[in-house]
Formats: sequence, C-alpha cells, structure tokens
Amino acid sequence: MQTIQYPDKGTWQEILRRPAMDTTALENTVTGILQDVQQNGDAAVRKYAQQFDKVALTDFIAAPAEFEAAAASLDPALKRAIQQAAENITTFHRAQQEQSKVIATMPGVECWRRAVAIDKVGLYIPGGSAPLFSTILMLGIPAAIAGCKEVILCTPSNAAGQVHPAILYAAQLVGVNKVFKIGGVQAIAAMAYGTETVPQVYKIFGPGNQYVTCAKQLINKAGVAIDMPAGPSEVAVLADDSCEPAFVAADLLSQAEHGADSQVILITTSATVITAVEKEVAAQLALLPRKELAAKALANSKLILVDNMTTATALLNTYAPEHLIVACKDDINIADSITNAGSVFLGNYTPESAGDYASGTNHTLPTNGYAKAYSGVSLDSFVKKITFQRITREGLAQIGSTIEIMAAAEGLDAHKNAVTIRLK
Amino acid sequence: MQTIQYPDKGTWQEILRRPAMDTTALENTVTGILQDVQQNGDAAVRKYAQQFDKVALTDFIAAPAEFEAAAASLDPALKRAIQQAAENITTFHRAQQEQSKVIATMPGVECWRRAVAIDKVGLYIPGGSAPLFSTILMLGIPAAIAGCKEVILCTPSNAAGQVHPAILYAAQLVGVNKVFKIGGVQAIAAMAYGTETVPQVYKIFGPGNQYVTCAKQLINKAGVAIDMPAGPSEVAVLADDSCEPAFVAADLLSQAEHGADSQVILITTSATVITAVEKEVAAQLALLPRKELAAKALANSKLILVDNMTTATALLNTYAPEHLIVACKDDINIADSITNAGSVFLGNYTPESAGDYASGTNHTLPTNGYAKAYSGVSLDSFVKKITFQRITREGLAQIGSTIEIMAAAEGLDAHKNAVTIRLK
Repeated sequence: MQTIQYPDKGTWQEILRRPAMDTTALENTVTGILQDVQQNGDAAVRKYAQQFDKVALTDFIAAPAEFEAAAASLDPALKRAIQQAAENITTFHRAQQEQSKVIATMPGVECWRRAVAIDKVGLYIPGGSAPLFSTILMLGIPAAIAGCKEVILCTPSNAAGQVHPAILYAAQLVGVNKVFKIGGVQAIAAMAYGTETVPQVYKIFGPGNQYVTCAKQLINKAGVAIDMPAGPSEVAVLADDSCEPAFVAADLLSQAEHGADSQVILITTSATVITAVEKEVAAQLALLPRKELAAKALANSKLILVDNMTTATALLNTYAPEHLIVACKDDINIADSITNAGSVFLGNYTPESAGDYASGTNHTLPTNGYAKAYSGVSLDSFVKKITFQRITREGLAQIGSTIEIMAAAEGLDAHKNAVTIRLK
Repeated sequence: MQTIQYPDKGTWQEILRRPAMDTTALENTVTGILQDVQQNGDAAVRKYAQQFDKVALTDFIAAPAEFEAAAASLDPALKRAIQQAAENITTFHRAQQEQSKVIATMPGVECWRRAVAIDKVGLYIPGGSAPLFSTILMLGIPAAIAGCKEVILCTPSNAAGQVHPAILYAAQLVGVNKVFKIGGVQAIAAMAYGTETVPQVYKIFGPGNQYVTCAKQLINKAGVAIDMPAGPSEVAVLADDSCEPAFVAADLLSQAEHGADSQVILITTSATVITAVEKEVAAQLALLPRKELAAKALANSKLILVDNMTTATALLNTYAPEHLIVACKDDINIADSITNAGSVFLGNYTPESAGDYASGTNHTLPTNGYAKAYSGVSLDSFVKKITFQRITREGLAQIGSTIEIMAAAEGLDAHKNAVTIRLK
C-alpha cells in the first residue's frame, strides 16, 4: 500500500489514475463471434461453448426439474438469507415507482409522461470461481417491479452442463424462468440477435470479463441498450479519527479480494488512522482464503492523507468511486457534499458488503469514474418514459403562433402549416 | 406513397423495416479526426474547420458582443415565441424533479437516493440549412434545472465565422454562455477530450449528421456518456374515421420535409381515410417550399389499412415510432395501450410540431426503434442518482447474518468478515 501525504491538486489526476481498460485489442475476436452467432444461431453458440467452456451443449435451457432440484438441495439458511435480501431490495426499488402526473403547461395544453417496462430484457451472470446469485436479485427484482414481459438469463454451466443451485434458486425466486446455460461473447450475441432457442432482447444487463464487456460495448454501438459501461470494482473509504481502523481495514480487504485489478483507496484527515489501518490490514489479510488475490490489489492501493474534509471530498468527487464508505463523525453532512459516486455507505456500521447483498440498494454500479455521468442500476433502468400531450382547439389557439413563428424561423414551413391548417 | 391492406403479421417486420443506418464505413475517417483532436487540440480543430467548413477560425468562442448583437437584431416576435416555448418546457421539466425519500428497508437500515447534476455537459447543435435553436431550449433548460455547473455548446459557424442570432439568443436565454463556433466530428472530439479552449465534458447531447452520429457512438464506446443513439426522424399517425384528413396530411408532410430519409407512416382502420389523406397530401405538397425533399421521403412512406385498433396498436408497438399522433375518437384509451414510442400526440388538435417547439415535452427522442429500450431526453438525462445507506449497530445485528451467509456462499470471505468484525 502506497502512502501519499498532502498531495498537491496538480497531482490528483495522476494519483487517482485507474489502470487503462482498453478492450480494442479484443474487438476483432469478439466481432467474429458476434457475427457468427448472428448468422448461425444455436450452432455457433454450441461451437463456442465447446471451444471456450469445454462443454458439449445439447438442450441448453434449464429444465423445470433442474429448478426443483436446486431448490431442494440448497441449504435452508442460504434460502432464507436470499429471501431476506430479496425483500429489502424489493422494498427499496418499489419505492422508486413514479406516479404519472398531468401538467397543464398552458390552458388547454396538457403534458405527462408514463414509465413503461422494456418488453424484453436479458441478464448475464458470469461463471468462474463464485456463483454470483446476488446479482440475479439486483437485476431480476427491478425487472419484475417494472413489469418486463420477458426476462431471460444466461450463465455458463460447468463442463458437466450444470449451473450452481443458488443461481437457479435466485432466478426462480425473482420470476426468471428462462435460464440459458451459456456464457461469454456467444451468450451476449444470442440475447442481442436472438437464436432458435434464445429470444432477442432490447437491453442487456450484468457483469462479465473483458470479452463480455467488449461484446456489450459493440452491441451497444449497434443499437442494443446495455446497463452501463464496465470496469474493475473499486472502493474509497473516507475516514476521520472517529473511525474504527479494524472496520476500515476489513472494508478495504473486502474490495481487494475481488481481484488483482480492484481499486482500493483510503482518504483520511488523520495520520494515526493510516498507521492503524495498515497494521490491521496486515493482520486480517493473513487470515483470508483469497489472500493472494487481495495482496495483488493492495499493491496498487493508496492511503492518502489530506488537510481537511473539504479537500477530501473534492478529491473523492474527482475520483468518482463506485463505492464510497464515509467513516466519519459528521457523515450525514459529508454525504451532502458528495456529487460523484455510485453508492455511499455512511457511518461505522455500514460496510460495503451490506449494499452488495442486502441493505436494499442496487450493487450494479458505475466503475472507472463513470459515476460522473452514469447512475447505478435502478427501477429506471428497466423502463422507458414515454411523453404524452393533448391540446384542445382553444389550447392550440393559445400556443399556435409561438409554434408558427419558431417553425418559420427554422425554415420548416410544413411544421408551421400543421398548426395553420388546424386554426383556419 | 405505398398503400398496404390488412398485412399479415408475418410481413410486419418487412413492412416496418427502416433504411439501414450503418456508419461503420465512416469509422476509420472519424477515428482519425477524434485521435487528431485528442492529441493536437485546438490546432486540429482549426485544421478540420478549414477543411470541412471552409472557415479560418481564430478565436472561436462567441464573444459577449456577439450575444448582445444577436439579441438586438432578432425579431421581437421571435424572441417572444422563444420565451413562451422556454416557459412551457421549463414547467414540464421542472415537474420531473424528484424528492429524495428515506426508506427503512429494515429497522436500523435506512436507504435513499439523491439526484445530482452531471457537472459538465456539452450540447451539439448542427449547422446546415436551418438554425435549430429549438434544440437549445430542449437541452439547455433541463441542464439548468438539474443544476449542471458547466454547460457548453458547439455549433458550426458560416464561412464568415458567424452563428445565427437565434442560436446565440436561445443559448443565452437558457444560461449557456460558452458557445464554441465549431462543428462536426472535431466539435464532438473537443468536448469529449477537451482542448486548450474547449472544456472536457462528461456527457454529450444533440443531433447531427452521420459523421457526428458516428463520432458520438465511438466516444460513447470509449466511456463518454451520450444522450442516445440516433437515426432519421420519423412519425406514425394512427387515425380512424374521426380524423381530419387535411390535418393528418399536414402532419405527414411536416415530418417528410425533414429530409429524404425521414420515415412517414399512416395506420388506419378506415379505407376512406387513406383515399382522403392521399388527396390532401398531393394538394398540400404542391405549396411547400421544401417539396422536393418532402416528396423523396413520401416515396418511401406507407399507408397501412388494418382491421381494428388492437391490430393497429400491436403494429405500432412493433414499429416503436419516435413520434406517434393518435387522431382517433378514443385517443385517451388508445394511449394506454401504447408501450413503445418516443412522444405521443393525442387528438385532432395536437400536431407533432406542438411538441417539436412549445407544448413543453422534449423533442430529443429515440428514433430507429430505439424507443423499445430508450427514453427521450428529460431532466433524468442531466443527473445521476446516487444511492446512500446508513445502518445502525442494531440494524447491522438484524441484517448481518443474511450478509454473512450470502457472502460465504459466493466465496467472498472478506465481504463476510466486514460484517463479522463489526458484530464481535
């Protein structure tokens, strides 16, 4: 861990630089797979599953019996935990529903907008070392609240064609009944273009490795919506003397265990905190099963000492962290000055892992500084808002000359005429 | 205009096909310009302004005297019209502001989200035959309501280095004081990367030709946010026997005059309406200044006769029009069954041009079927929503085991430990 004291503002960009996330080198490979699946459908999906995942796919939609077996085999305590998390996520996302209200901008000119579910959405859940069933809750629950008619899920199976039971249990719990046991670029392609087996969707959500990220970027450029651009996960902790160094260390490590490219930053107004946290990180790291991974991420991490809270929040808003933990006495007021972040965790008893799983907020968040322009996933991500207007004859008489004058000034006479002919 | 009677559902995709919008052929050219501006800043911007716009740029930020001259020279009736439109747009977009509300998902677990303005946004307004000052209102007003700190605007000048006074007047009216007289790919690049003169922004809005569209796609893939993907403008009119054929014809023509690639579709349950509209289109077209352009768009347009309203709305939801006019007796009920559209105009006295200029709704809308997954521009487009959570010690005791069990099942022990260490 690198300690930086009182950095000059001119050095902030350099200190906060993230590793470059350039996937252009992969584009030829990924484009080839996308095109192959677009043209050859299931046959191409099977070919790449064999090639990359070493699995001979036959029927790759999860059967009802597999869902039943998953629910039967899963530890009851885990099922209860998943249900509790699902309840909290449901409560928070349901509160994001908006009532449509009619606004009379002038007498006889009524405007409103209505949130309508995106008909067909696709969720991608990566395979690999851990079964990310929590992400199914984070994506499937707002999709269900929005009322999306078709919600499908792709996730790679193991070589025996099996998917972790927690994946199938979480999917069924949130109403996702079409689970396709496919992964990688071929899964993104199948959802973007549709195949004989996989329905085409209008928007694709979920995390993935650099190939999946590249595939999502390319299909997005071609017009299919995606949740947001992606980069490695990251946490920043802002701490003052009121923090518990052992808690801060645990939070830094919980981010670091995601992998070598995870970003971990501590910003503090107290030199004592830096020393104490370093000591705690060393002690806790030694006990972690994923300590090699975490140690690699920590090698790139930074402990930054600043003069005061104003500098600290300015530095944080420049960085725009995915996760921000505020372990400070004045946490509520500090929260008001945060303008760039994905999700913020306030106080000594709010670890990032609470939001990762169960507080109710969404854990699909903007990384890589994208929090400057992007929100995390929410109910909004699963709807589009259609505007409506209804004008009476009297209303048009009121607003008509405004439209006619502006249309004429833009050189659009037919636009003008659409009003003139109605007022004749 | 092509008339199609009672099309079979199997033919819908073919009938509703839009012209392909493939900008990949331009990518090499556009990438070259983007990179040149990223590396060489203002010098590259000046080079391309000379090459493409035949203008020798020196200082290309509009001076205060230019804003004053613009305001002084503009027709007072046009100024009043712009002000009236700005008031209605302000009223509608201000109503989109959301109150933050704290949700206790469990006792001691409080979650909320707060909409925060995107700090720096850039608006692009194309040059060409018409000065699109109305788009400045549509983008600048929600940016101001959101509270964006820096709102810049790029628009190409004429060969003498001048910008239309209505552009400058509208910009100043909505609080956009930094207007750069540059256009094309070089303007998009300047806003995406920043130059000596042009500040870098986090999100870029606004229409443009296929080069500008391609540039926006490419910088979006590289991580800069954009309003939405773009395609040619389009309108669909749904009409029954209660419509006024002359009004419908005027609406079809107001879309057709945008250009040869505009899409114009009429769907009706009445054969009489088709005949009457065709006659009216011919009569009104003859009188239009832009009749050559409009005639080209009409050559690709379709008049579709269907059995009943259920089929009509299904066809429309498959098409997902940017603009939809519902000229039917039962317009309010029909509106409820529309699930894919950008903006909807209800009744005989609500022409599309009302929304284009002054009803209050936004005219920056999803084209090319993107309305299936994308919303038009709104206040939401200028903010990101940050989530917050604050958990008490008692709250963490309640929710802790749920987090611990889920983290352990995902193989993330440090996530689990961040809870365990706090509850010890």
